[in-house]
Amino acid sequence: MEIYLDNSATTKVCPEAVAAAVRAMEQEYGNAASLHRKGFLAEQEILSAKRSIAKAIACQPEELYFTSGATESNNWALIGAAMAHKRRGNRFITTTIEHASVLHTMDYLESQGFEVVRVSPNADGNFDPQMFADAVNDRTILVSCMLVNNETGLRLPVEAIAKAVKRKNSETLMHTDAVQGFLKLPFRVKNTGIDLLSASGHKVYAPKGIGILYRRKGVRILPLLHGGEQQNGERPGTDNVPLIAAFGAAVEAYFPHQRAYLDQYTALCSRLCGRLAEIPGVSIHHDAERMVPYILNISCERLRSEVLMHYLEQAEIYVSSGSACARGEKSHVLRAMGLPDTEIDTALRISFSKDTTPEMVDAFADRLATAFTELEKIGR
Amino acid sequence: MEIYLDNSATTKVCPEAVAAAVRAMEQEYGNAASLHRKGFLAEQEILSAKRSIAKAIACQPEELYFTSGATESNNWALIGAAMAHKRRGNRFITTTIEHASVLHTMDYLESQGFEVVRVSPNADGNFDPQMFADAVNDRTILVSCMLVNNETGLRLPVEAIAKAVKRKNSETLMHTDAVQGFLKLPFRVKNTGIDLLSASGHKVYAPKGIGILYRRKGVRILPLLHGGEQQNGERPGTDNVPLIAAFGAAVEAYFPHQRAYLDQYTALCSRLCGRLAEIPGVSIHHDAERMVPYILNISCERLRSEVLMHYLEQAEIYVSSGSACARGEKSHVLRAMGLPDTEIDTALRISFSKDTTPEMVDAFADRLATAFTELEKIGR
Repeated sequence: MEIYLDNSATTKVCPEAVAAAVRAMEQEYGNAASLHRKGFLAEQEILSAKRSIAKAIACQPEELYFTSGATESNNWALIGAAMAHKRRGNRFITTTIEHASVLHTMDYLESQGFEVVRVSPNADGNFDPQMFADAVNDRTILVSCMLVNNETGLRLPVEAIAKAVKRKNSETLMHTDAVQGFLKLPFRVKNTGIDLLSASGHKVYAPKGIGILYRRKGVRILPLLHGGEQQNGERPGTDNVPLIAAFGAAVEAYFPHQRAYLDQYTALCSRLCGRLAEIPGVSIHHDAERMVPYILNISCERLRSEVLMHYLEQAEIYVSSGSACARGEKSHVLRAMGLPDTEIDTALRISFSKDTTPEMVDAFADRLATAFTELEKIGR
Repeated sequence: MEIYLDNSATTKVCPEAVAAAVRAMEQEYGNAASLHRKGFLAEQEILSAKRSIAKAIACQPEELYFTSGATESNNWALIGAAMAHKRRGNRFITTTIEHASVLHTMDYLESQGFEVVRVSPNADGNFDPQMFADAVNDRTILVSCMLVNNETGLRLPVEAIAKAVKRKNSETLMHTDAVQGFLKLPFRVKNTGIDLLSASGHKVYAPKGIGILYRRKGVRILPLLHGGEQQNGERPGTDNVPLIAAFGAAVEAYFPHQRAYLDQYTALCSRLCGRLAEIPGVSIHHDAERMVPYILNISCERLRSEVLMHYLEQAEIYVSSGSACARGEKSHVLRAMGLPDTEIDTALRISFSKDTTPEMVDAFADRLATAFTELEKIGR
């Protein structure tokens, strides 16, 4: 039996989303920009998906733009804000634990003459809203802070950060990369002060290749791509109807059970932590107060991550050593969180889906326990 | 029966591509960047698709990058070249009949201080390679010329243009937006002098939302998006495996029959032109010597395009009044080709697919003939 516990890297597409994609490929295959009925029907698929997604984060459908994924959404939010507001300011603020698509876009903006302030976690590994407010000046264009860290599951206080930032400078835009929190956590953008939010479909049972950028009404950013009049000319390119429809269907299927799934993750996480606590050599980097229950980061004393991953894979158990997007590089997140190299090199990330069962979690724990006896350990 | 004759706007996804997308959503659903077997299997899907597409244009698989569509490919080629080579030059050259994603990206570059030269067709509606060579100077970064015009079907001599351009300045990059020619026409980039080529999946029976940029080995352009290490860090973002696999499958299914399908389009076009010639009031803007046989542009005296489109739609016949990407605007292409307003306002584009039959073409011609008797005509 395949035991896929790498759901923060990507998820298996749910049947509802597959069906929607197939319908859009075989039947509603028109170009949504076409002025005839085939175009109209394709456009209806888009509007319906927008309504489903808007409901899940409490925004207006017309505040949503479809992109090719969260990497594009993050690039668009940051570069688009820089281009639109460069006369008003030059400072960007972010954290040291963002995803590469925020960190490297910030590096790019720095290379273009913008100033970037990177906020590190405090000694407890937390982010205090005041740290961001202190960094905001009257020339600050945008603050970008992720909702949930992809490696540790840390839930960042983006609502409180948004409030603190806006109190300091009401013109500063607030962006959140919500990829690892969207849909899995109850989260409403309404009245939070959040201006821009990125999310992707493939972390929530839609296919890879589709994302959204939420842009609060009235917030100005320039387009990243130039072309036709699709999405009001703000994000041109033929609308990706199959994946948009699939994204809508995945959200529609999940959202009513959001609370139940969250309870399920909490039970799974608690069970797994209990099992892992019995295995000598396992350190659990988890704090239920601060971290989401569907991402669990651990270190396995003297067992290098890659070796462990391949050992687990032989039993069809799939986990990761950190972010899938940074193959082989030492985790900048765990480093920023203050973990020693020995724990970074032996880190594993286990991440749950709605289809994860207690039996899968037990199978993982059993196999991990044998790893400590069977695998050759690295020296201290 | 649905008679879809708007295949230059988009095509119905072929069964092979649907099957590949479903397989990637349900089985090979791993993140191609993941270091375990699920990731490896997803990566194999990408490599296989690259091989299929590379074969179709005679390039190396590693010269292909996947994008969200041709709009992104065109933006990347032009802006990426501008950013990479701005020290060496400042001039861009294109035609007046490009797609909006080239034209508007050129407008953007102009707003950023680059110089853009737009070449118009000569009195015969043709583009002479010498016109481009004359515009190239020692500060010319790139020439962009489409392979096939999306409204008239004009086949532009990009290979000869590339040669003329390179003779004048060997450092000038040659880009072609090949969206309307890719796969439908035999076309090999090898030894042509073409450095960059854009194409999209949804014009050739793959889903919307996937495109390629061919970049000849050694050609330097900067990335448009910043993020993870996917596609060598040149185009980050989780690889869109379902649509990549579907694109590969669509090309694999079509390419062996390229010649046969082209013959089929030629027969359909000839049949339709014959039928239309019998209808008084129809002007056929087609020249088999210069235009592809799967796009046919006509004007219908005193019958406004939108009225005609809706009339045809009542019989489930779908055609378009021009580009789907420029809803309602007067065609810049037909204007550049020298057509009078009366012919532009009454223009229809009929475009064939591999599934178009002679019966469909006849049904269209029959219905169009009745339009002239049934519809109220606009004044001269």
